[in-house]
Amino acid sequence: MRIALAQNNVTIGDFLGIEATWRAAWERARSANADVLLLPELATTGYPPRDLLARPDFIERNLALVDTMTRWTAEGGPTILAGCILPNEAPGGNDFFNAAVVLRDGEALARIHKSLLPSYDVFDEDRYFEPATSRALVEIAGVPVGITICEDIWSSPEHWNRIRYPVDPCAELAAQGAQVLFNLSASPFVLGKPRVRHALISETARTHAVPIVYLNQVGAHDELIFDGHSIVAAADGTIIHRLAPFEEDFRVVELTPDTRGGTDSDPAMPEEEEAFRALVLGTRDYVRKSGFERVLIGLSGGIDSALTAVIAAHAIGPENVHCIAMPTRYSSDHSIDDARSLAQNLGMPFSRISIDEAFQSMLDQMAPLFGDAPPDITEENIQARLRGMTLMALSNKSGALVLATSNKSELAVGYCTLYGDMCGALAVIGDVQKTLAYRISRWINRDGEVIPSGTIQKPPSAELRPDQEDADSLPPYEALDAIIGAYVERHLAPDAIAEDTGLNPALIREMVTLIDRAEFKRRQSAPVLKITPKAFGVGRRIPIVARHR
Amino acid sequence: MRIALAQNNVTIGDFLGIEATWRAAWERARSANADVLLLPELATTGYPPRDLLARPDFIERNLALVDTMTRWTAEGGPTILAGCILPNEAPGGNDFFNAAVVLRDGEALARIHKSLLPSYDVFDEDRYFEPATSRALVEIAGVPVGITICEDIWSSPEHWNRIRYPVDPCAELAAQGAQVLFNLSASPFVLGKPRVRHALISETARTHAVPIVYLNQVGAHDELIFDGHSIVAAADGTIIHRLAPFEEDFRVVELTPDTRGGTDSDPAMPEEEEAFRALVLGTRDYVRKSGFERVLIGLSGGIDSALTAVIAAHAIGPENVHCIAMPTRYSSDHSIDDARSLAQNLGMPFSRISIDEAFQSMLDQMAPLFGDAPPDITEENIQARLRGMTLMALSNKSGALVLATSNKSELAVGYCTLYGDMCGALAVIGDVQKTLAYRISRWINRDGEVIPSGTIQKPPSAELRPDQEDADSLPPYEALDAIIGAYVERHLAPDAIAEDTGLNPALIREMVTLIDRAEFKRRQSAPVLKITPKAFGVGRRIPIVARHR
Repeated sequence: MRIALAQNNVTIGDFLGIEATWRAAWERARSANADVLLLPELATTGYPPRDLLARPDFIERNLALVDTMTRWTAEGGPTILAGCILPNEAPGGNDFFNAAVVLRDGEALARIHKSLLPSYDVFDEDRYFEPATSRALVEIAGVPVGITICEDIWSSPEHWNRIRYPVDPCAELAAQGAQVLFNLSASPFVLGKPRVRHALISETARTHAVPIVYLNQVGAHDELIFDGHSIVAAADGTIIHRLAPFEEDFRVVELTPDTRGGTDSDPAMPEEEEAFRALVLGTRDYVRKSGFERVLIGLSGGIDSALTAVIAAHAIGPENVHCIAMPTRYSSDHSIDDARSLAQNLGMPFSRISIDEAFQSMLDQMAPLFGDAPPDITEENIQARLRGMTLMALSNKSGALVLATSNKSELAVGYCTLYGDMCGALAVIGDVQKTLAYRISRWINRDGEVIPSGTIQKPPSAELRPDQEDADSLPPYEALDAIIGAYVERHLAPDAIAEDTGLNPALIREMVTLIDRAEFKRRQSAPVLKITPKAFGVGRRIPIVARHR
Repeated sequence: MRIALAQNNVTIGDFLGIEATWRAAWERARSANADVLLLPELATTGYPPRDLLARPDFIERNLALVDTMTRWTAEGGPTILAGCILPNEAPGGNDFFNAAVVLRDGEALARIHKSLLPSYDVFDEDRYFEPATSRALVEIAGVPVGITICEDIWSSPEHWNRIRYPVDPCAELAAQGAQVLFNLSASPFVLGKPRVRHALISETARTHAVPIVYLNQVGAHDELIFDGHSIVAAADGTIIHRLAPFEEDFRVVELTPDTRGGTDSDPAMPEEEEAFRALVLGTRDYVRKSGFERVLIGLSGGIDSALTAVIAAHAIGPENVHCIAMPTRYSSDHSIDDARSLAQNLGMPFSRISIDEAFQSMLDQMAPLFGDAPPDITEENIQARLRGMTLMALSNKSGALVLATSNKSELAVGYCTLYGDMCGALAVIGDVQKTLAYRISRWINRDGEVIPSGTIQKPPSAELRPDQEDADSLPPYEALDAIIGAYVERHLAPDAIAEDTGLNPALIREMVTLIDRAEFKRRQSAPVLKITPKAFGVGRRIPIVARHR
């Protein structure tokens, strides 16, 4: 059987663009004499459509596209297997199925429903979809095929350390005699997940002695990055085809039940590179799919804005990344120099706008109400907010998007200013802990200095008052990041964190309190590109008003 | 049977406060010789705990409170029926049950699991809970009782216009011979829902010829307002006891299977009053449960900030509502006068801070980069953002929360400034359409002028450029609100909206485009107090990056 895999990047709800994309893939598959063309989960709409599913015309356009693709196959050519939304005609239950259709000779030969509906972290599939109640093989090119959709392949209790799902679709379909399993996915990226995913698919193929063709969506939608990384695993579990990571790809593979692989050569990618490439894709797609071409970044000379700028430069071209340094009386010369050097190193336009007069003007304005109150966080926030306002004014005037530069460590403890440095359309590194930001920055500099060494080596400082350093307010970032990982990503209580990390219990309690208290800031954060199992944003739903601890 | 209903206001995760609250209720029930004390859904934690459920210590403290309450009953006194979280010990499925325990004589006599788990709009119960697989009666004070939890009573296909749920817990329990049905709820408010809820309960009682005791949580958590409004319906459907709306209440009722009511006298509450009281409760609980006492509101002289201020004054006392007028060169004298009059009418502290010099300073600062570009939305946004910054500076210095003043119509079409008038901890009237804001304001003035007539009668204007009026940019609010209702709340396509409203199709398409484009602003909005079936916020999950239409 000749199988074509279309790993293409579409935009949710862009029905004309989606149709053109899959038509081009289908023609390419036809030219290559493929028997079947695989399109990803919800190929007709892009994933995740979320509450767009509540709009009847959205569902209708998805069904119209299924009809259109059905008509293509009336011309002959490859069978199409495409993810789509199908209405639930039964009385009762959710309105839709997360489905796949098999289209051949101008007809829909089979409709498959997703069995396992994830409803954890960023997923809400129980909100929309009804699960399949049974599973059956579909014959394609004379071969009995087991068709699964995304989570259907994630049923392994070993993976979850518990039984999460009552059925194992792959096992059922293998037992029914499937000679190959197809999986149509839209599986969001987190660090290390490509390798976990490949190991799971390899293990599943080996367990059931059946080859698996796994097609994953590529491209980003809001906070979610879909990394592609589609693969074909032979029945012995070896991976015999790998499609591109983090970019579009198209492949036609020949597969028989007897196809075996050679030695699996996994092109190892360091974690820093994996994070960087994911964030580049996430930034590019957010900006371009929103209809923008240029971005603005407030460049402080510190590591967070530097890393954000490098990611943006790779995403949309350095000439489209306008860097703005906005010094006040508290800014050091070396910070401005480092900011300028970074812009020069990458060829990004650079401007310097002093906000000090506006700062003085605000201080004068507030003086009658502030009276003799000593300077505190208020004056620091005014500076951060004037910078945010300056960037937003440039954005309004020029039509460039502002990118926010807060990292995950700052967002966790609230060491960032709401409506200040949190301003922006997208929080590019909002799921990158400070220690990882350093590691990625050093990786960026692996073949020569891109990010100035001063930026990487100097002690982190917000430069919002004289001689300020992060270390005045926060523990060393290694300790802070360990606490954040334990509390935010693993939900441990302070006692358990102390046991886990060996850190001072009082420090842990203090940081956990900061994290809890900053919930109101995060609720108003720009979308955070997700690269860890628990990012701030849609996958983490914590009440603001709560007195836990 | 003597039944005590504890309609008390607790804070999520405030385990010490929760324990004290239910202990006081239990002692009161004991003094009144009640046979059983009813506590609401998830009484041990407050509802909704959302992802706090992922924290093992949160679950443990909930279980510890169940143990504590069990020990109370070892002293004798009334049986306790309390909502709580119970672990799912079975292999497979979600980790928890949304449950109720029956505690008597120092033992847990029964554990009931919720059958119907809502996962629409603001609800995510499929994310956390496993449903009950069967239902059984529990004997309390010699009476066979059917115990249900919140959604369990909402199984009626007539209510949903379709079969939403596969089982009807009330029908099952009635068929098993229940002589009374109890329902423990945490049912969030929307306009008109108290009456819908009471009609449903009344109809269910009549259908099964069984009395129903319905206890609902009272108090607000973030965007959700729980309105209390607990009731007891006799077997003939008449409502024989009504607990207080929008506030705490405690009642001991005598009930036998033969109890019948007289004529049902529903104390009618106009929609404007219902909205107002809900928003007062939502605002009070957000501010107080967050640990604050005072708020700041930017008072423009327009209707939105005026209404927000009146709500705040009723919520936390006028002396705690600091009103700030922040004029520029474009502000009219009558606006400042109206703002001052409102503050005087209610006894709210009032300050006037001109932001014009800071505005000029920002214009000067931006001049080198703006060059000859003509004034546009940029300069308007700078003013709105200087106001936001001024309020946030006062907040930082004084420890008062800022309340945002955008209404639902503005949030819908993006006629509001991100980081400007959208600044604030809570969007008090973010689910109130402009036309409803006028109706509530006139209702507030029903016995005399509280909100100055100028504020209500003048044409709406943002006063961000000379002679600006909302009508320059937007259609009349009656038309706009009809479009927003059809598109946001009923998900209609533009064609269907034209058919539904008779409005100009081109205007509808234009407004729908504005609504879609403003998604990025709403994602960074403060939490919006929900009073309609579809508020902006957690119950509405629309991708930002999407090209639908």
